[in-house]
Amino acid sequence: MYQEKSSDNGSSIRHQLRRIIFGTDTKLGRYFDITLMVCIILSVALVFLDTVASIHEQYGEIIGILEWGFTIIFTLEYLLRLYCSAHPVRYARSFYGVVDLLSVMPSYLALFFPGASFTLVIRILRLFRIFRVLKLLRYLSEGNVLLRAMLQSGRKVFIFFFSVSLIVMVLSAIMYVVEGPENGFTSIPKSIYWTIVTITTVGYGDITPGTNLGQAIAALTMLLGYSIIAIPTGILTAEISQEISRSKDLRRCSNCLKNGHENDALFCDHCGGELEREL
Amino acid sequence: MYQEKSSDNGSSIRHQLRRIIFGTDTKLGRYFDITLMVCIILSVALVFLDTVASIHEQYGEIIGILEWGFTIIFTLEYLLRLYCSAHPVRYARSFYGVVDLLSVMPSYLALFFPGASFTLVIRILRLFRIFRVLKLLRYLSEGNVLLRAMLQSGRKVFIFFFSVSLIVMVLSAIMYVVEGPENGFTSIPKSIYWTIVTITTVGYGDITPGTNLGQAIAALTMLLGYSIIAIPTGILTAEISQEISRSKDLRRCSNCLKNGHENDALFCDHCGGELEREL
Amino acid sequence: MYQEKSSDNGSSIRHQLRRIIFGTDTKLGRYFDITLMVCIILSVALVFLDTVASIHEQYGEIIGILEWGFTIIFTLEYLLRLYCSAHPVRYARSFYGVVDLLSVMPSYLALFFPGASFTLVIRILRLFRIFRVLKLLRYLSEGNVLLRAMLQSGRKVFIFFFSVSLIVMVLSAIMYVVEGPENGFTSIPKSIYWTIVTITTVGYGDITPGTNLGQAIAALTMLLGYSIIAIPTGILTAEISQEISRSKDLRRCSNCLKNGHENDALFCDHCGGELEREL
Amino acid sequence: MYQEKSSDNGSSIRHQLRRIIFGTDTKLGRYFDITLMVCIILSVALVFLDTVASIHEQYGEIIGILEWGFTIIFTLEYLLRLYCSAHPVRYARSFYGVVDLLSVMPSYLALFFPGASFTLVIRILRLFRIFRVLKLLRYLSEGNVLLRAMLQSGRKVFIFFFSVSLIVMVLSAIMYVVEGPENGFTSIPKSIYWTIVTITTVGYGDITPGTNLGQAIAALTMLLGYSIIAIPTGILTAEISQEISRSKDLRRCSNCLKNGHENDALFCDHCGGELEREL
Repeated sequence: MYQEKSSDNGSSIRHQLRRIIFGTDTKLGRYFDITLMVCIILSVALVFLDTVASIHEQYGEIIGILEWGFTIIFTLEYLLRLYCSAHPVRYARSFYGVVDLLSVMPSYLALFFPGASFTLVIRILRLFRIFRVLKLLRYLSEGNVLLRAMLQSGRKVFIFFFSVSLIVMVLSAIMYVVEGPENGFTSIPKSIYWTIVTITTVGYGDITPGTNLGQAIAALTMLLGYSIIAIPTGILTAEISQEISRSKDLRRCSNCLKNGHENDALFCDHCGGELEREL
Repeated sequence: MYQEKSSDNGSSIRHQLRRIIFGTDTKLGRYFDITLMVCIILSVALVFLDTVASIHEQYGEIIGILEWGFTIIFTLEYLLRLYCSAHPVRYARSFYGVVDLLSVMPSYLALFFPGASFTLVIRILRLFRIFRVLKLLRYLSEGNVLLRAMLQSGRKVFIFFFSVSLIVMVLSAIMYVVEGPENGFTSIPKSIYWTIVTITTVGYGDITPGTNLGQAIAALTMLLGYSIIAIPTGILTAEISQEISRSKDLRRCSNCLKNGHENDALFCDHCGGELEREL
Repeated sequence: MYQEKSSDNGSSIRHQLRRIIFGTDTKLGRYFDITLMVCIILSVALVFLDTVASIHEQYGEIIGILEWGFTIIFTLEYLLRLYCSAHPVRYARSFYGVVDLLSVMPSYLALFFPGASFTLVIRILRLFRIFRVLKLLRYLSEGNVLLRAMLQSGRKVFIFFFSVSLIVMVLSAIMYVVEGPENGFTSIPKSIYWTIVTITTVGYGDITPGTNLGQAIAALTMLLGYSIIAIPTGILTAEISQEISRSKDLRRCSNCLKNGHENDALFCDHCGGELEREL
Repeated sequence: MYQEKSSDNGSSIRHQLRRIIFGTDTKLGRYFDITLMVCIILSVALVFLDTVASIHEQYGEIIGILEWGFTIIFTLEYLLRLYCSAHPVRYARSFYGVVDLLSVMPSYLALFFPGASFTLVIRILRLFRIFRVLKLLRYLSEGNVLLRAMLQSGRKVFIFFFSVSLIVMVLSAIMYVVEGPENGFTSIPKSIYWTIVTITTVGYGDITPGTNLGQAIAALTMLLGYSIIAIPTGILTAEISQEISRSKDLRRCSNCLKNGHENDALFCDHCGGELEREL
């Protein structure tokens, strides 16, 4: 293991800890990450199961104890990250720093709001604990092609959603007038809810058109939704195709400079030279 | 600021106003547009909220006053556009001219149809006020690639919808015979409504097949809808791919004439010359 | 108008009629086609409206008379086609010959099955009248690119549907065991119906899982359906892209032989020579 | 028919049987495969129909006898495969070997668990008989392009599902807090079920948001689901496009070495030499 020459002993430990906690290039660093990932998934699973009434009655106390165990683990992790970070303030203000803090705060705050009367507040505090799941985002560095394709098409998608909003608003107002409160369209906001349920082809059926004219307009709305579903798919497919062919262009043989190799190719198909592994 | 030599003073003011109201290349012109956009969105939001019974009871009067405020603003805007347009009649007959008129008419018409007995008429008049939202279309000049791709594929999409109509009609008639009025298929138009709800995968569940044969045909209908959803997506994706590669062809370096640059490229990747910003 | 030298007068009239009825290259031929198309659409609309109870009560008799009018028109058309066709037997056996016969048969057959007791038989006979709509297929010659893309991908789509069938059958059996008759899964065929309703994302809600395990399996089924919806779209998009670029290859300038022109291009972009109109 | 010289007679019969049972290149081998395929489909259809109460009452005994007939056929097939396989143990441990065993086991196991009290056990045993359908997988060797495209995009699809899981969990927790048990969101696992039903646009309607805020969040969830449905489609389409153009590259004329021929081309379009049939 690489050992740095260091006059200050504490600084050396901090540096070692930094490599383990923030890095992924040492064995201990990878163990640390995997342990943390398991803890995050288990703690979120606990929060979810605790909301099931029958499980809460039987195992509520055990879950409460485990819950505090995870809170202490995540608190220690947060303090360690603060201690060994090169720029503690920048870390605390970063997205992951805030997420790490949010994932332990609710449990401590719940201590100051006890009593059975504050159920809603506690329920909301409990909710925030599931933001722990966002800590997993740290391990999601592979999504670059997807993300770039989405950002690339962001402007077109925005225009698409703007147009859909116009259509939804006009259709909602028409349906409100045609159907009226007697068929469940009690207000235009409720009518907007129905239009979105219909145009996205979800179709709960909690509000359905009752009049003949309303059903005809609903049928048109569905056919419209059916065809505009094609637009974002088309935009994104075109962008992803380009991203893939671009990333293929980047796989260039360092020997004969030929590019365009498959993502899983190991050797250059022109000169037989070994290709670098893609990250 | 660019100042035109003009013998007639009124004509000069008209010209200035025209640049502010119709143009977007001056600071005042942009402020005017943004103010108008905010007014449109606020007035449409008011119309929508006014239909919620509880809000109408509590804030109905304030909404009514604000509503008249917006009507006066849009009336002034309409008159100003008529006054300073180079061709007032052509503007009045244009799409946006009609939309601008439609957005103020309902409020004035409602004055001539008072009384509680004309609720439906008033409800329809109120409806028309949301056409104000169409005024936002003016700011939607970015959708060219999408629009061209859609027009390009218009013929294929028409054939697709014609074929779907044939399938829907045949399936509706079969389901009407198989299920009959006792399972909610009271007429073929109602059966068409069911078929569209099913083939677009909306699936409200207000009418569902009750017989075994009907459920088998319904299952086939769904699988059919599931596979034909692929057709418009395929058509549009192919067209958008072509539009994107075509618009890329147009990004040509004026120095070395190499084309095919990325949309977000700033410099030519061949000679390093600066590229023109795409609009 | 082009006039053929002919010794037999009847044969000349037959030839003339053939050009009008089967052809689309004369003015009368186009008028004949358009008139027929309007008749087909009107007659199908009548059949559909007649099934609405309130319309049948009020306008039943008028519809019945109009119905017989259309039947006579289509009978005349069928006899004329038989008379002036170059190969009457081949026409009678062709797809359109059978459709033309099927579109008039039900009305005549209904004469031999009167009485109120044969309502179902008559309803089924009436159903067949909507096959008139298939007569419109004759005018649908534009769908070549789409059809070729679909046939091209037929083998892949068959494998796709075979795989989906396997998945549906296994999931149906599992859900039948997990949920059982008490939650509406009364038999495996009913369970297959539910699986198809779910996997195609239709989701009527007439049968929904009641147990926790069933809901978990249902959620997996939905995610599965959500991702496999991508497969036929992907296959078809790839094929349509190829068909479009192939049809573009076929637009070759007859002057300088350069190909790859846009579908709507009128002149060669290389030598300026006029391009032939694509059919 | 090809005849091998063989000193051992039993080994020769085994070899002959192996060609018939495992191979598809002889006439008898194809007959064997087709007979087996029909048996599999018929036996699975029987299992499915037997679960319909009315059919079970009337035809239960005949189905039971036929069921035993199929069990004996599949047992004989399994023993024959074991006998004539070159590596019996390897076959028994292979995927198809296990599937072949699983398809006969349930019927024999049911003999040891008689009595009316073990209905659930018998129902589960009956379930396993439908795994016979997996025997059809043997005949599904055409799906290579699809499978390779799916594996190629496996990593991107995994990241996609991981991101969707994060979104689903956060949305479920929010909806649980907003709606609460009084609107059917009794626990977070139930809330996850609702979120998946909504985001995949299935929309049963068994659980629907009741509060205004809940309906607004539901509408956002649907629009989200509507746009992320585009992502796997885009990934897969891009990969399939590449697989198709790659498989076309492989159709190379052995005479003049020109490649890029259509899948259904029989002759080289450059030199006219006959092309090899693609498998």
